[in-house]
Amino acid sequence: MAISIPSRQLFIDGEWREPVKRNRIPVINPATEQIVGDIPAATAEDVDIAVKAARRALKRNGGKEWATASGAHRAKYLRAIAAKVGLPPGILNILSGLGPDAGAPLASHPDVDKVAFTGSNATGSKIMTAAAQNVKALLNRSCAMFVWQPVTLELGGKSPIVVFDDVDIDKAVEWALFGCFWTNGQICSATSRLILHESIAKEFLDKLVKWAKNIKISDPLEEGCRLGPVVSAGQYEKVLKFVETAKREGATVLFGGKRPQHLTKGFYMEPAIITDVTTSMQIWRDEVFGPVLCVKTFSTEQEAIELANDTHYGLGSAVISNDLERCDRVAKAFEAGIVWVNCSQPCFSQAPWGGKKRSGFGRELGEWGLENYLSVKQVTRYISNEPWGWYKPPSKL
Amino acid sequence: MAISIPSRQLFIDGEWREPVKRNRIPVINPATEQIVGDIPAATAEDVDIAVKAARRALKRNGGKEWATASGAHRAKYLRAIAAKVGLPPGILNILSGLGPDAGAPLASHPDVDKVAFTGSNATGSKIMTAAAQNVKALLNRSCAMFVWQPVTLELGGKSPIVVFDDVDIDKAVEWALFGCFWTNGQICSATSRLILHESIAKEFLDKLVKWAKNIKISDPLEEGCRLGPVVSAGQYEKVLKFVETAKREGATVLFGGKRPQHLTKGFYMEPAIITDVTTSMQIWRDEVFGPVLCVKTFSTEQEAIELANDTHYGLGSAVISNDLERCDRVAKAFEAGIVWVNCSQPCFSQAPWGGKKRSGFGRELGEWGLENYLSVKQVTRYISNEPWGWYKPPSKL
Repeated sequence: MAISIPSRQLFIDGEWREPVKRNRIPVINPATEQIVGDIPAATAEDVDIAVKAARRALKRNGGKEWATASGAHRAKYLRAIAAKVGLPPGILNILSGLGPDAGAPLASHPDVDKVAFTGSNATGSKIMTAAAQNVKALLNRSCAMFVWQPVTLELGGKSPIVVFDDVDIDKAVEWALFGCFWTNGQICSATSRLILHESIAKEFLDKLVKWAKNIKISDPLEEGCRLGPVVSAGQYEKVLKFVETAKREGATVLFGGKRPQHLTKGFYMEPAIITDVTTSMQIWRDEVFGPVLCVKTFSTEQEAIELANDTHYGLGSAVISNDLERCDRVAKAFEAGIVWVNCSQPCFSQAPWGGKKRSGFGRELGEWGLENYLSVKQVTRYISNEPWGWYKPPSKL
Repeated sequence: MAISIPSRQLFIDGEWREPVKRNRIPVINPATEQIVGDIPAATAEDVDIAVKAARRALKRNGGKEWATASGAHRAKYLRAIAAKVGLPPGILNILSGLGPDAGAPLASHPDVDKVAFTGSNATGSKIMTAAAQNVKALLNRSCAMFVWQPVTLELGGKSPIVVFDDVDIDKAVEWALFGCFWTNGQICSATSRLILHESIAKEFLDKLVKWAKNIKISDPLEEGCRLGPVVSAGQYEKVLKFVETAKREGATVLFGGKRPQHLTKGFYMEPAIITDVTTSMQIWRDEVFGPVLCVKTFSTEQEAIELANDTHYGLGSAVISNDLERCDRVAKAFEAGIVWVNCSQPCFSQAPWGGKKRSGFGRELGEWGLENYLSVKQVTRYISNEPWGWYKPPSKL
C-alpha cells in the first residue's frame, strides 16, 4: 500500500526552516522496509537558534505577549494551532533529530528551564546526568550560564497482569492479549508478564494460543489489522534476540516469536507466548518493547503479589478477578503508578500517568501533569506597624 | 562559658550502637575553638545495617506494623518519640558521619527509595548524579538491585532584598540587617544582596553602618548575643577570603569583614557591608554563607527587578516598600520560590519552602512538602459485562 510522506522542515521562531547543516533522516516504512520519505535532522546549532527564539518570545513586550499573558489568552492561540493561526514566533519550536545531535544539546542547554521526557531508561539516565552536570559546571565556574533543570521522567516497564481462577476465561484471555500486544507490544505500560492462577493455567493457555493464532497480522493500513510490524530493523532484531535468549535460558515458546509465513518483508513477528519462565530469566526481568508475553503461574494471592512486584520497574499493573475485594487488596499491594482492574491499558487524560521505582518519577496528565510545569511561590507579608525589634537601635545622635 | 556535650552513639534498629569502625568526629565550639566532645562517624557498613533494618521494619508482620498502618497509628509513635516510647525498631535510624563515608553510601544505596537533602549545590549535584548512575548500573546489568531514587533538592541562594524610597528607613535597615546577618549569615535564604533606591542610598547606608556597629557580637551562650561565630575554621577562612576577593575586585568594605577587637579566639567576624559592587563580581554572584551583605543601587522598578533576578539562584527574595501594589508587582516578578514583603526571613511550616533555578527543586513543608513523600496511583476498573472486543474470537470448536 503506497503512502506519501510530506516533506517537512524544522519549525523555529514562527517559520519552517531547513536545518543549519541541512541533514535529513530517512523514514522507513516498517511494513515494507522501503524508504518513504525523510525528516529534518536538527543539530546543536538549530537547538541554540530555537532556544534563543523561545527566550525572546518569553521576554517580548515585557513578557505581556506570552510569559505573563492570561491562561485564557494563551489557550486561544493553542486551540488555534491546528488552524495555523499566528502563534507569536518562538513560543512553539519543533526540532526533529537524532538523540546525540539534537536531544543532547537540548537537554543540556543552559537556557532550557524544564525537560519532560518519555522514553527508555538509558536516555532518561543521560538526561538526568546532564541536569546534574550543569550544576557541576557552575561549581567549577567554567560556565556561568547553566541552570538547574527539573526533569520529569516517564521511562519503561515490565508490567504484570495477574489473573485469578474466578474469571470468565475468554474475556480474561482477550485482556491478556490486548494488554501486551496492542501497539505491537511497543508501549511502556504493556502488561508483558502474565501471572496466572495454576488451577486455570492449562485451559487459559490453550485459549490464549487459539486467540493469538487468530490475530490478523498485516500492514497497519490494511482493514482489520490487529498486529503490525515493530518500528525498525534494529528493534526487530532486538525482539527476535529476546525470544532466542529465552529459549536458550530454558523457556518454552508456546506460540509465535517468529516471522509469519505470509509476510516475507517488513518487521513482522507472530505474537510470542513464552512459558517455563523463571524469575531470573532476561525475559522476566527486562523490557522487550515488542509482542512478547511471558507467563508464570501462582497458587496464592500473596505469591501472585510477590511475583507482580518482583521487578525494578513500577509503571503499570493489572488484576483480573470477579472478587472486587480481592481486586482492591491487590491494587493496593501493586508497587506501580497505574493499576487496571479487570482490564489492561485503557487510560484517560484526567488520570495521573507515571511510575515508581525505575519507571521514573513525576506524573503526566491530569492535575498532577500540570503541576510538573508549575512552581509554587510563597509570599509572606509583614503587616505590623511595629519594628521587628531583633537588634537594638543605635542611640540617636 | 563551659558547655557539656553528651556522648552519643548511632541509632539503628531501635537501639544506640557504636559505629562498626568505632570512628568519631570531634565537635569544635566555634566560639572558643576548643574541642568540646565528639559524635559517632558512620561508614558504609553502618549505612547498610541501617537500611536493612528499615527494610525489615517496613515488611515486618506483612507491613501491618508500619508500611500499611494507618496515619493515626503512625502519628501516635511519632508524637511519642520525644518521650522515647518504643517505636518499632528500624523505622527511625540516626547516622551521623562525614559526607564521603556516610552520606555517599546512603545516597547511592540501592535499597533507599527517597533522598531529601538540604545543603550545598556541590553535594546536591553529587546526589543527583548518584541517582542517575543507579539507572546506568541497571542498564549495564552490573547490579540487579538498584532503584530510582527521586530526589528533592533544597540548595543555596544569593537572595535579593529590594528597598524602595518610600520606606521608614530605620525599620527597613533592621530588616536588611536581619535578612542577612541572623544565624550569622549561615542560612540558604539569607537576603545577601541589598538593592537600594539611589535617592535614599546615602542616608540608608549611614544608618545601616550605625545599626551594624551596634550589633552585639559574642559567644551565643551569652545573654543578648546577636551575632555569633561562623561554624568552623574552614568556613571562617572561606568567608574572610570572600571579603578579600571583593576588595581586590574593586569593591569597598564600608564596614566590618574582619575579626572584632574584643574577641581574640573563635570564628568571629564583624558583619560586612560591601559597596561599589558590579554584577560580575564574585561577591554579587556566589553564596558566602557568612555575615556579608553586598549593596547596589537602582533608579527604576524595572532596574531593581532585573538586578534582583540577575542570579542563577532562585530561593528567597524580599521587597520593602509602602506601596503595596508595587510590592505585588515585584513579588510576581521575582524569580524565586519564597518572597518576603516588608520583611525578610520569617517563615511558617504551612508554606512551601524551596527554590527555582539552581536553588533546587521540590518543596519542603506544608502540603507541598508532604507531596514529596507520596506517590499517586491511578486505578481504572472495567465495569462493562461486554467483552473488550478488540480481537476477533477464534471460532468455537
